[in-house]
Amino acid sequence: MDIQQILEDIQAEVRPLLDQGRVASYIPELAVVPGDKFGMVVRTVDGASYAVGDAGERFSIQSISKIFTLTMAMQLAGDDLWKRVGREPSGNPFNSLVQLEYENGKPRNPFINAGALVVTDVILGHLDNATETVRDIVRGLCDKDDIDFDLAVAGSEQATGHRNKAMAYFLKSFNNLDNQPERVLDAYFHHCSLAMTCLELCEAVLFLANNGVAPLSGDLVMTGNQVKYVNSLLLTCGTYDAVGDFAYRVGLPAKSGVGGGIVAIMPGQFSACVWSPGLDASGNSLAGSKALELFTTKTGVSVF
Amino acid sequence: MDIQQILEDIQAEVRPLLDQGRVASYIPELAVVPGDKFGMVVRTVDGASYAVGDAGERFSIQSISKIFTLTMAMQLAGDDLWKRVGREPSGNPFNSLVQLEYENGKPRNPFINAGALVVTDVILGHLDNATETVRDIVRGLCDKDDIDFDLAVAGSEQATGHRNKAMAYFLKSFNNLDNQPERVLDAYFHHCSLAMTCLELCEAVLFLANNGVAPLSGDLVMTGNQVKYVNSLLLTCGTYDAVGDFAYRVGLPAKSGVGGGIVAIMPGQFSACVWSPGLDASGNSLAGSKALELFTTKTGVSVF
Amino acid sequence: MDIQQILEDIQAEVRPLLDQGRVASYIPELAVVPGDKFGMVVRTVDGASYAVGDAGERFSIQSISKIFTLTMAMQLAGDDLWKRVGREPSGNPFNSLVQLEYENGKPRNPFINAGALVVTDVILGHLDNATETVRDIVRGLCDKDDIDFDLAVAGSEQATGHRNKAMAYFLKSFNNLDNQPERVLDAYFHHCSLAMTCLELCEAVLFLANNGVAPLSGDLVMTGNQVKYVNSLLLTCGTYDAVGDFAYRVGLPAKSGVGGGIVAIMPGQFSACVWSPGLDASGNSLAGSKALELFTTKTGVSVF
Amino acid sequence: MDIQQILEDIQAEVRPLLDQGRVASYIPELAVVPGDKFGMVVRTVDGASYAVGDAGERFSIQSISKIFTLTMAMQLAGDDLWKRVGREPSGNPFNSLVQLEYENGKPRNPFINAGALVVTDVILGHLDNATETVRDIVRGLCDKDDIDFDLAVAGSEQATGHRNKAMAYFLKSFNNLDNQPERVLDAYFHHCSLAMTCLELCEAVLFLANNGVAPLSGDLVMTGNQVKYVNSLLLTCGTYDAVGDFAYRVGLPAKSGVGGGIVAIMPGQFSACVWSPGLDASGNSLAGSKALELFTTKTGVSVF
Repeated sequence: MDIQQILEDIQAEVRPLLDQGRVASYIPELAVVPGDKFGMVVRTVDGASYAVGDAGERFSIQSISKIFTLTMAMQLAGDDLWKRVGREPSGNPFNSLVQLEYENGKPRNPFINAGALVVTDVILGHLDNATETVRDIVRGLCDKDDIDFDLAVAGSEQATGHRNKAMAYFLKSFNNLDNQPERVLDAYFHHCSLAMTCLELCEAVLFLANNGVAPLSGDLVMTGNQVKYVNSLLLTCGTYDAVGDFAYRVGLPAKSGVGGGIVAIMPGQFSACVWSPGLDASGNSLAGSKALELFTTKTGVSVF
Repeated sequence: MDIQQILEDIQAEVRPLLDQGRVASYIPELAVVPGDKFGMVVRTVDGASYAVGDAGERFSIQSISKIFTLTMAMQLAGDDLWKRVGREPSGNPFNSLVQLEYENGKPRNPFINAGALVVTDVILGHLDNATETVRDIVRGLCDKDDIDFDLAVAGSEQATGHRNKAMAYFLKSFNNLDNQPERVLDAYFHHCSLAMTCLELCEAVLFLANNGVAPLSGDLVMTGNQVKYVNSLLLTCGTYDAVGDFAYRVGLPAKSGVGGGIVAIMPGQFSACVWSPGLDASGNSLAGSKALELFTTKTGVSVF
Repeated sequence: MDIQQILEDIQAEVRPLLDQGRVASYIPELAVVPGDKFGMVVRTVDGASYAVGDAGERFSIQSISKIFTLTMAMQLAGDDLWKRVGREPSGNPFNSLVQLEYENGKPRNPFINAGALVVTDVILGHLDNATETVRDIVRGLCDKDDIDFDLAVAGSEQATGHRNKAMAYFLKSFNNLDNQPERVLDAYFHHCSLAMTCLELCEAVLFLANNGVAPLSGDLVMTGNQVKYVNSLLLTCGTYDAVGDFAYRVGLPAKSGVGGGIVAIMPGQFSACVWSPGLDASGNSLAGSKALELFTTKTGVSVF
Repeated sequence: MDIQQILEDIQAEVRPLLDQGRVASYIPELAVVPGDKFGMVVRTVDGASYAVGDAGERFSIQSISKIFTLTMAMQLAGDDLWKRVGREPSGNPFNSLVQLEYENGKPRNPFINAGALVVTDVILGHLDNATETVRDIVRGLCDKDDIDFDLAVAGSEQATGHRNKAMAYFLKSFNNLDNQPERVLDAYFHHCSLAMTCLELCEAVLFLANNGVAPLSGDLVMTGNQVKYVNSLLLTCGTYDAVGDFAYRVGLPAKSGVGGGIVAIMPGQFSACVWSPGLDASGNSLAGSKALELFTTKTGVSVF
């Protein structure tokens, strides 16, 4: 298969969709990103990589950071993590508080906001310098020392993220945060503000397609069994309340962010990352979802 | 790998669990099945099959029948099906009416009871003899002419299935049933009452591991793309409100029934079926789930 | 105060509202009632009565019948009734199933449909001829032997009342119906179909303004304490999910029906009944609610 | 009727209940109040007052303060207030966030916490010195210049009121707070911390029984129509999710607080206040509710 050609075909096919999504507007810094950006990268475990479009431009990874914080929390807390956060799809919007109240403050999974706040709290309980450690691990995974937080984005979230603040205080009221809500929120907003390219994200998550081994360094990030766990969580919980539709159309474990990025994993074979800022009603990149759907359809490769 | 030996090891390991689940009691016919039954079969697309325990004993397939009715409805109605039923995990018990009310009578997916009632209604709208046709297709898939409904089970459901009746009338009140609720319920209860063995179920669903082709007959049951669709729905919606946990532990598309059966699919490789009547709190076979978890852990084979 | 003049002023004031409500359309027999009908009656405990408009025309009392069935069930079952139905406002539409599921089949109060079905089931458990007995008691209260069920209305409900059927089977699934759902529904639909005039309804409920004594017969229908109970339930639960707004504007215990009737009670002083078929979004008579609001505003008489 | 004797009888009858409720423990300052305190006062519009027990001891009025803030907001904002807060019973616990999410940030009524936060925000939008103004109005109503905030209680709420903070940020996320959440919370916690006696509270709310006129000063606090509005809101929304049961048993408009106080109004006749710190499951004073029930039963006086 000519992967490069397939990516170029996809790029042409999704072009009409680029202006149909809605760029996230609740953060001024995200709202100004041009809606016609599109980049896509496929990086195989064998060392090959294929790229089209704006694949080398950094964007706000937002919720994709939840992969890295979950990975760290699984290493730090082991199975105790699952006493504080569940492993089930929520069936509700990513920032809903309803289920949290019915289920006494235990978030459904680590990929909805409430779950990621608990995951962040777990990391803060183990590390003095948790915020920077997460960044440094990401730097190491893709061997890029200049990956960093976008402090303007993080600051905007601090100023306007009322719903996330409500969630953190709500978790605290159920005794499911050990640290002060403001401290957890600060770390969380920083992680979400990391700016990376499609190429960098593909490198950074490639261990999930490579049985836990980071290809660049040869380091074992997690065991093969843990990789199976993370990929299953990505497939059942990684794309907000559209997981079923996404699995149906794309058929790969994936995580999206409101910055318009999506990373996807084909175990044993490759990681992929697509970026297009316009979002669909569920908060996933509209053209990005389509691009991944086209990729698995054209190649016939999916976990199903 | 010595699959036969692995199955025998698993059989020994799960024995202590056999009396820890709860046999479904709301139907008298299910309640009398001995709780210590256990059977397991793996059937590869290459023609090999491995079996342990009570693999040749028929049991009530119950919700596993939803695979067959969904397959038929996809063939009969095409994409129109998705106007009447969704593709998202529900995050709620399989027989909940709450979500149905909030979402105006459109069930979340075809594998919760409300969704299966709509699927049944779709089939009834296309076929004069829908109830028997479903049975005959199952017979054909595993080449066993004596597979049949258990009329005592179907009759018990008619007499005691008040919640399913509530659901059917509720769907009707939202105009999401074309036929009379009593007619839909009758067909639905019949399909659930089909009695099959683990071996027969493995044969019957093997097309989902074989790119849509039924191995016994060589018939194309559905296209490869449709297989991807069904398998993704199984993975995200097939095991009630424990889909996340099941995907995490087992990592295979699967469908369970309150009769204690579970079928699972490894695309391109095999189908598996396990039966043990004792259920866990989510309504999935307790020992059956564990057996499948052990199988994917011991073999290292899962979609992730 | 010149009550007659006040009623005539009100009749003039609400005229512009008569075509702004929506006549209930789910039953064909209700849908054909002209939307410009308006009648209003005030009947004092001292024997005076004042009437305007279509006060002598019979209409379908629908949920107003819940007053009579509750009265009977309180007499027959005493405080045991409250084990099966609550006394709290529901905060949800009158035919919602959501709360019923969360609260395990115990309806919030006797004036939402689910609660009235349980009340009907209680009566059926005590009386052989419950359906007719309810009618006969109403006949006695207003001394009119020709008050009767409208069998066309009752039959329409049987044919189209899918949501009420869903509710009855749902209650049965929680073991909160002793009788078969179809039998309970039949009685319930009959009671709702009673046809009465504003004058007759004022007579029939006047005991609630008269310390429990039916003025016409002098019979003690219930004790003064029981009257307090029923009136408090009417005020907090009698007008669907608009009880707060209704209490705010009108300030009287009241019960509405989708036939467009509303009865209201001023303890110690009078009963009132208004009829206008056009309904507001909550299912209460639009002009009827306004007429009662004008009455308590003009007279300065309310329980507050 | 010998009111004093009736109060003394009630005091004797409720004594066995004093140790059966649970004193609110989430604020240390409330937790240390002895559970066997009991005071009760009835104050008529004619100038008579009757008192038993600890009627002269100050306690934390907590949610009873919502009467005073609502009164102010109605004066300041008029009917615009109802664009931001509803008038319906919630049917949910007083600090639930579920309904708030479903209803897009518009609280059901001014007496649940979310509603009171919005009411406080309204006052803050009109007055520079809102916190103190509320206190001064209360001082004026009962002519006691030393009524004041309990700063230890207010400080405790600031430190531990995570759920109220969650609610304030949630309201802000729906744009239903104009001021910063921290500022609204500070004012709200101060108002709740007011310490008053039963006698003082009876004076302070007596205008609600006196057609809007404050008996001590002769000032018109609100019009008779506004009094009807407030009393109807008290009856349908004043006692958390037990309004139906409270109206059934007591039959008076009333407002309770977690400090164990309850005030009740008999329009045209009297105000009553009871204090007993032990709470029932709904958060209302256990012995206090019983005392009011006994009072309306023994006197035969209620709005119904």
